[in-house]
Amino acid sequence: MADRIGFVTMGEARSAEGEIPSLGVGMLGYAFMGKAHSNAFIKMPYIFWPPPARPKLVAIAGRNQAATAEAARRYGYAKTYQRWQDMVTDPEIQVFDNGAPNDLHAEPCIAAAEAGKHVICEKPLGRNAAESKRMLDAVTKAGVKHACAFNYRFVPAIRLARDIVDAGKLGKIRHFRATYLQEWITDPEFPAVWRLQKARAGSGVLGDLGAHIIDLARYLVGEPKTVNALTRTFITDRPSADTPGKREKVDVDDAFVALVDFASGTLGTLEASRFARGRKNANRIEINGEKGSIAFNLERLNELEVYLPDEHASKELVGFTNISVTESYHPFWNVWWPHGHVIGWEHLFVHEVHHFFDAIVNDKPIAPHGATFEDGYRASVICDAILASAASGGSQVAIAY
Amino acid sequence: MADRIGFVTMGEARSAEGEIPSLGVGMLGYAFMGKAHSNAFIKMPYIFWPPPARPKLVAIAGRNQAATAEAARRYGYAKTYQRWQDMVTDPEIQVFDNGAPNDLHAEPCIAAAEAGKHVICEKPLGRNAAESKRMLDAVTKAGVKHACAFNYRFVPAIRLARDIVDAGKLGKIRHFRATYLQEWITDPEFPAVWRLQKARAGSGVLGDLGAHIIDLARYLVGEPKTVNALTRTFITDRPSADTPGKREKVDVDDAFVALVDFASGTLGTLEASRFARGRKNANRIEINGEKGSIAFNLERLNELEVYLPDEHASKELVGFTNISVTESYHPFWNVWWPHGHVIGWEHLFVHEVHHFFDAIVNDKPIAPHGATFEDGYRASVICDAILASAASGGSQVAIAY
Amino acid sequence: MADRIGFVTMGEARSAEGEIPSLGVGMLGYAFMGKAHSNAFIKMPYIFWPPPARPKLVAIAGRNQAATAEAARRYGYAKTYQRWQDMVTDPEIQVFDNGAPNDLHAEPCIAAAEAGKHVICEKPLGRNAAESKRMLDAVTKAGVKHACAFNYRFVPAIRLARDIVDAGKLGKIRHFRATYLQEWITDPEFPAVWRLQKARAGSGVLGDLGAHIIDLARYLVGEPKTVNALTRTFITDRPSADTPGKREKVDVDDAFVALVDFASGTLGTLEASRFARGRKNANRIEINGEKGSIAFNLERLNELEVYLPDEHASKELVGFTNISVTESYHPFWNVWWPHGHVIGWEHLFVHEVHHFFDAIVNDKPIAPHGATFEDGYRASVICDAILASAASGGSQVAIAY
Amino acid sequence: MADRIGFVTMGEARSAEGEIPSLGVGMLGYAFMGKAHSNAFIKMPYIFWPPPARPKLVAIAGRNQAATAEAARRYGYAKTYQRWQDMVTDPEIQVFDNGAPNDLHAEPCIAAAEAGKHVICEKPLGRNAAESKRMLDAVTKAGVKHACAFNYRFVPAIRLARDIVDAGKLGKIRHFRATYLQEWITDPEFPAVWRLQKARAGSGVLGDLGAHIIDLARYLVGEPKTVNALTRTFITDRPSADTPGKREKVDVDDAFVALVDFASGTLGTLEASRFARGRKNANRIEINGEKGSIAFNLERLNELEVYLPDEHASKELVGFTNISVTESYHPFWNVWWPHGHVIGWEHLFVHEVHHFFDAIVNDKPIAPHGATFEDGYRASVICDAILASAASGGSQVAIAY
Repeated sequence: MADRIGFVTMGEARSAEGEIPSLGVGMLGYAFMGKAHSNAFIKMPYIFWPPPARPKLVAIAGRNQAATAEAARRYGYAKTYQRWQDMVTDPEIQVFDNGAPNDLHAEPCIAAAEAGKHVICEKPLGRNAAESKRMLDAVTKAGVKHACAFNYRFVPAIRLARDIVDAGKLGKIRHFRATYLQEWITDPEFPAVWRLQKARAGSGVLGDLGAHIIDLARYLVGEPKTVNALTRTFITDRPSADTPGKREKVDVDDAFVALVDFASGTLGTLEASRFARGRKNANRIEINGEKGSIAFNLERLNELEVYLPDEHASKELVGFTNISVTESYHPFWNVWWPHGHVIGWEHLFVHEVHHFFDAIVNDKPIAPHGATFEDGYRASVICDAILASAASGGSQVAIAY
Repeated sequence: MADRIGFVTMGEARSAEGEIPSLGVGMLGYAFMGKAHSNAFIKMPYIFWPPPARPKLVAIAGRNQAATAEAARRYGYAKTYQRWQDMVTDPEIQVFDNGAPNDLHAEPCIAAAEAGKHVICEKPLGRNAAESKRMLDAVTKAGVKHACAFNYRFVPAIRLARDIVDAGKLGKIRHFRATYLQEWITDPEFPAVWRLQKARAGSGVLGDLGAHIIDLARYLVGEPKTVNALTRTFITDRPSADTPGKREKVDVDDAFVALVDFASGTLGTLEASRFARGRKNANRIEINGEKGSIAFNLERLNELEVYLPDEHASKELVGFTNISVTESYHPFWNVWWPHGHVIGWEHLFVHEVHHFFDAIVNDKPIAPHGATFEDGYRASVICDAILASAASGGSQVAIAY
Repeated sequence: MADRIGFVTMGEARSAEGEIPSLGVGMLGYAFMGKAHSNAFIKMPYIFWPPPARPKLVAIAGRNQAATAEAARRYGYAKTYQRWQDMVTDPEIQVFDNGAPNDLHAEPCIAAAEAGKHVICEKPLGRNAAESKRMLDAVTKAGVKHACAFNYRFVPAIRLARDIVDAGKLGKIRHFRATYLQEWITDPEFPAVWRLQKARAGSGVLGDLGAHIIDLARYLVGEPKTVNALTRTFITDRPSADTPGKREKVDVDDAFVALVDFASGTLGTLEASRFARGRKNANRIEINGEKGSIAFNLERLNELEVYLPDEHASKELVGFTNISVTESYHPFWNVWWPHGHVIGWEHLFVHEVHHFFDAIVNDKPIAPHGATFEDGYRASVICDAILASAASGGSQVAIAY
Repeated sequence: MADRIGFVTMGEARSAEGEIPSLGVGMLGYAFMGKAHSNAFIKMPYIFWPPPARPKLVAIAGRNQAATAEAARRYGYAKTYQRWQDMVTDPEIQVFDNGAPNDLHAEPCIAAAEAGKHVICEKPLGRNAAESKRMLDAVTKAGVKHACAFNYRFVPAIRLARDIVDAGKLGKIRHFRATYLQEWITDPEFPAVWRLQKARAGSGVLGDLGAHIIDLARYLVGEPKTVNALTRTFITDRPSADTPGKREKVDVDDAFVALVDFASGTLGTLEASRFARGRKNANRIEINGEKGSIAFNLERLNELEVYLPDEHASKELVGFTNISVTESYHPFWNVWWPHGHVIGWEHLFVHEVHHFFDAIVNDKPIAPHGATFEDGYRASVICDAILASAASGGSQVAIAY
């Protein structure tokens, strides 16, 4: 097929020779992540044409039978399960996708791995490092493919940033700073949903948004050596999500700030909050290296800002360049639209699912561009260290995997 | 289903009661627009859940048999046709979607209408006003639903802009200015594809990008009364797209500029070019009214800039407000993701397909928020007037439908 | 003197050898432009150290005796005149600066030139081309230095833009578009000040803001060949500025839009308005050339946006580069502060006064970087052509100097 | 005098009644700060017309006799001194301005205070808290007016931010984050100037840029309770600034990062670096409160971004508002130009000098909007705490004044 459609070089597929295999998918969870992942399974094969395999939507599991049935009908899953225990052994399933709340990450993933399923699990992997370690050990032992769904590795602009780092264009990295700011729970009457309960979520914004920037820090700069951190819970009790009239104590962090000393000598700061009014999804990253800088904001995910004087022919014309990361030669873009026809947040999952299926079908490694359970575990270790540091008033805590 | 998933009010579906009907779709064209429309047909039903009807992908037609077969396999069309004449009478089809080059808009749409199919056709409707009129007359006579796929009416930010105008928040509109800038054919060795041939395309950038901003001008400000315009062809001959070594004359406009006097007294300018280096998809609109202003850029389609002093409580704090048009109460957003989880260009077609299916199933009007063949025809009249003005050195030409 | 102050290469002066000459200045007008120009005379010598000459503030003239005396005391003018006729022959004065309303441009400038004074006059030069021609003839005949104060030529970013054009980095220029938008008179009760009276101002926004972008168009792209234009007066009568309770007809343009065909083949649009809510001083320019683009906005005057792929080493990293035009090697910046320590609007006059004094003392030409009365005259010709075109419904009018 | 000049309400002066007093100024230092302060002394009286007093430039002092003489000639100082000891007792001087390197802050300021001069001193006040305390004690004892030149309190946008905070529009402040990033010494061959020597400068970027954001944190949010900090010296030896061929050890910080726990419960981060490539003068501040947010960047100092939903009439139209802080009713702007005619970095000193002179002449307090030696001292205490924390690996250090 020609790769010029009308005016522009648009990512175009080559012809699909022979039969396209399929891989049976079992999905746990039908809510936010269930919707995002189901969308990706449906969309991946015709976007990444021909796909390594077509996802076959075998089953979806959830405790609420009606809601699960509705989701099955909506997205096209053939079966429903009320008990994940039944689904993870379904012989039609080769891929288990865990989009459930954090307290349902470990046991289903471990059981699925033991049943020989490839496993992709939403972040954070476990509720703490110990739980994540058990999960990592299980998939390692089972020899299945495993991915921790740190989807922001699959932003074209982030992959481009990594390419810039890998090419040495920044030189030694001096500074890394990331803030992931949202505003979802600024209202004190917002209820104490599961994400605000330590028993279910493990931690608060730390495991939710913090884990993303911790993973990106590792992906872009390398391993942290130590952290000093503080956390804060601004609203300490909230209405129960389940029992009208009841109030519940919030026992997780609403925000955290951390200093990070990286093994490379990079000096870093990390911060996440659900109390930053006006910041809808502001995952912002800035890297300053010896030879240049990179800046990114998820709210404008099709753009990357770079300052790389050595890349310019004239010093008078140097500055931060705003790259529309939408050219056919940019990461992931050969499958999409003409340049400037921007993609959205949901498409990161499409890239991720393709990466995972490609790894399974063609026996490629998930790492380094995809995150594995090893990466999920390491993020958990860092989260635990941040909590430990905060508990001691910000004392330095070493990272040890 | 609860509309709170985790932390945020996310657009969520109500339960689908009873059987969901389906409407058979016949698609003409498998390239850029074929891909965009097919994607929308697949995606619409589970995003707008429950959908007014599920699109059933009955058939796809195209002259290149192998490519059409590949597209069918890719997107899931049950049948292929090499002759559109055969497809438009297929009894399984209720909806005919025309994503073919401009010279294949009129006859297939007219035939489909005559066969009683609802018709959605890519813009520009016809290659000129006369051709568009024939198309309009055919769908009117047939009594079918008809839409001209001016997809930018379905940008949430543009719909919000229209809401602002409708609410009178701008007062009398003084100025409208729109520029649609791209850079696809700056290379003089880019071949003379069909879009650069008057016989096939009707006009150059005018019918392609210009038609979009003409439609948005009408949608946001109302009817133009006169135009004064100039056009320019920067590269007058190019390599043939078909015959190696041959060169062909470019007989369409590479750029146009126009002054527009609106019936309302608004003073406007319109400009489109495929020669604006660095502008990937810069459909930029600014409206200045008596009481405020609005600015939009398609390259950041999730954002709208508004200056509306009367909306502010303190004069010291007035300025252009950058709205992230991603809240559940923003246009179209109740079906999507949590705020700040931005959507992309392709999703405009999803909104459009939903609008069209909803109009068919529930017998609602396409207008005013969707564009009909009437709108397509009017855009053609304005395009013709622009060409006529340009031919006379920019003399004023009245718009008469 | 070392040019490193602390950390950064800061523009620094060389030592002033010998006596610094002085040039006597006579200033007409004490209001907005009187303040801006007086500030520049005071500031220039110690910023551009050593200066070509120190401006000696000999006299200021104005019809309101008290206000003129106050201005003299404020800025340090030694004498005051109520009649400009008396000032222009003052033998202590070598430089006559005309910052008066437009109807007081011609006669004082002509008289000053006849008295052998160098003349700098605010824009627009005359109220129409005929008047401007008389002024040009007078300074030419007198053999004095003459400048028309188009101060935006002295924005570092605009000078850099010109350098880019001169170096051929854009290639052939395809498009020029400039809009100068303000919002000063959106209130219909704003009075009919002199700027809204044709007899005094010559034209409305056209001669005021339009003249600036016309001059920049000529400075950056070259001579226009034809114009097609429309004008509009949105508020046709206003309260008198002088007589309470009286209303006066507004007989000048509130806004204009124009298509410009340049001699070079560039296609242009020009627009100015005083009715663009929220646009405080939005002189915005965009140039698209064969090989790149430039964008500028006076509201962020320390920045220039450039898209110049040939200047980049890697195609993946190309985009619009935001240049902070504040490096010691940028135009005018060797006299200022460390980079990033931005300058303001008033400093353009400082550059301009230096340029004028340097031309006088060292007998250098004002052109091409400064605007002369020739440039002022040509801008008037173009303004007249725009009015003539608008009067005929936008017919094409040729530019003939 | 009318306050409408042409089209816009421009800050205009009232008439100056009676004699304008003058205050004799003695300036120490002729380099970067000498230039910036001298400019402010010259400019203040005619901008803030009528001024509280005219600065009379009595003398300038500096060790390099030729350079000092040149500066005197350039700016108009009547006398020069090689020994500051001689200048601080000059009876013509009422105001002593210290723009010398940090190791020359304490003794001259103390001596000047003891001689009864009002004292304004560049930041950081002393090289450490003990030295600053001696300075504070001296001015307190002498009963003179004293100011520490934290000029960023005099950015109109920062003053507006403070007004917003004071009005309670943010509610409880949750987060404060400030980064002050520059790139001056990324070149390892940049010499070991005085700012890189602990003995002369006290600290590195901490006292230089860090002190600014520490002061702004106190000004905008209140007192910090504890800090946890890390510092880094990226380039540990550099060429001597004085002795060719020699290298010197850098014994100050190139960068620091700090977590701050404020008395109010606000969680903060502070960071400054001279190694952030591309960041020319990026003093960036963000405040997130219960009810809204504020963001500022010194590189665009005429702008303030605010997110204040309660200030908007319609929830659909809420977002970050970009305020052009240039209206006549904005802080400081009544003396400047029409809106949108932006000011520059140097003008902050003009505001500061006016504030100081107004305090002297009219016996007003410097605080809270101007910084005193008390503020300078408190910044020093916080700097010392940051260094102490960093020395201990980021342990928490309490702030005690």
